[in-house]
Amino acid sequence: MARKRSLDEGPVLRGKIMNRASVLFYQRGYAATSIRDIADAVGISSSTMYHHFTNKQDVLHAIIKKFMTEFVSATCAVLRDPSRTPTERIRETVRLHLTISQDRRPELLIGNPIRYALTPGQQGDGIRLQIEYHDAVQDVIEQGCTTGEFAVDDVQLTTMALLDMLNGVREWFRPSGPLSLDEVVDRYTAIALKVLSASSSVNAAVAVGRAHA
Amino acid sequence: MARKRSLDEGPVLRGKIMNRASVLFYQRGYAATSIRDIADAVGISSSTMYHHFTNKQDVLHAIIKKFMTEFVSATCAVLRDPSRTPTERIRETVRLHLTISQDRRPELLIGNPIRYALTPGQQGDGIRLQIEYHDAVQDVIEQGCTTGEFAVDDVQLTTMALLDMLNGVREWFRPSGPLSLDEVVDRYTAIALKVLSASSSVNAAVAVGRAHA
Repeated sequence: MARKRSLDEGPVLRGKIMNRASVLFYQRGYAATSIRDIADAVGISSSTMYHHFTNKQDVLHAIIKKFMTEFVSATCAVLRDPSRTPTERIRETVRLHLTISQDRRPELLIGNPIRYALTPGQQGDGIRLQIEYHDAVQDVIEQGCTTGEFAVDDVQLTTMALLDMLNGVREWFRPSGPLSLDEVVDRYTAIALKVLSASSSVNAAVAVGRAHA
Repeated sequence: MARKRSLDEGPVLRGKIMNRASVLFYQRGYAATSIRDIADAVGISSSTMYHHFTNKQDVLHAIIKKFMTEFVSATCAVLRDPSRTPTERIRETVRLHLTISQDRRPELLIGNPIRYALTPGQQGDGIRLQIEYHDAVQDVIEQGCTTGEFAVDDVQLTTMALLDMLNGVREWFRPSGPLSLDEVVDRYTAIALKVLSASSSVNAAVAVGRAHA
């Protein structure tokens, strides 16, 4: 009860703790960062910290859940938007996926190896949100196949391939590298649309059809 | 000197230690596995263990290096085989990448979050081998563009996208799932060839060209 009330009272401080903690976890590693380090970085006492979070794992869980909730909210608003074509929705999703992943790198990267530090229940929150995003992407690919914009043999595996391809970027992209993020977005959009567009055999059939016409 | 001699004397035991250790790391986690646990699983004393490996980190490094060396050796033999077309080489590489990753799951998966447990020098071995594989894939894509089998706007980014797509499979594939590994291999080969083949606009140009011919 006491903890719940303090959450309601201190959302600004709670957000500040999460921001500082995500940077510390990212820079020093989760294991090497203590509750005391986080409290010091925010300029509060450890006992004030414990008004807001039960332990370090609770801070990690809150950071990952907030990031995933906002990522899924932003992408699914586009993916579920009936006023845009499936192609437009995929284009915008590639852009959002890559730019959010880059802009919020500390929050995202700590979620990788350190996610194992969470309880199964805490991991479940992230998994449910991942599934929500995955399903929205899969639905758009199916819709694109129905409208004829996309031609995909296996919608489920193509969805996995597309998401793994996009998730991979955060592991190697560096703003100091030869390509800007906008250039990577453009080129990955083109690759994504190749994955989703008619296969060579379909195009060849169209070509033969046209030649015979 | 002493350690080097014992390595030469006991390659079979060394291999046995690495096999048992990789399964323990995979099942229990790296942090939760002690040198004593590994020695017990092999049926040797801890002091015999220390004849072969300096510490637990040394065992992990040896497992990852062996796996990566054999993975790169198998794939690069195909990728660098001038008797096959680029398309044949990519087909066989997709198959090798996915089947080796599945067949040697314990060795591969421990390399993921636990790779952070290695020193930068130890990580460097794995990174050099990854680069060797990456470069061989990129060279085949370039050759395929030269022969006209592939049409790729950005060879470097397409290589990254292709490898990230293949690496992603190990995170979600389960032999008990709806698709067999062979089915996943077939469908991922088709997706890989879509990524590499002529873009829709190129195919459309070919179609127009044929129609005009």
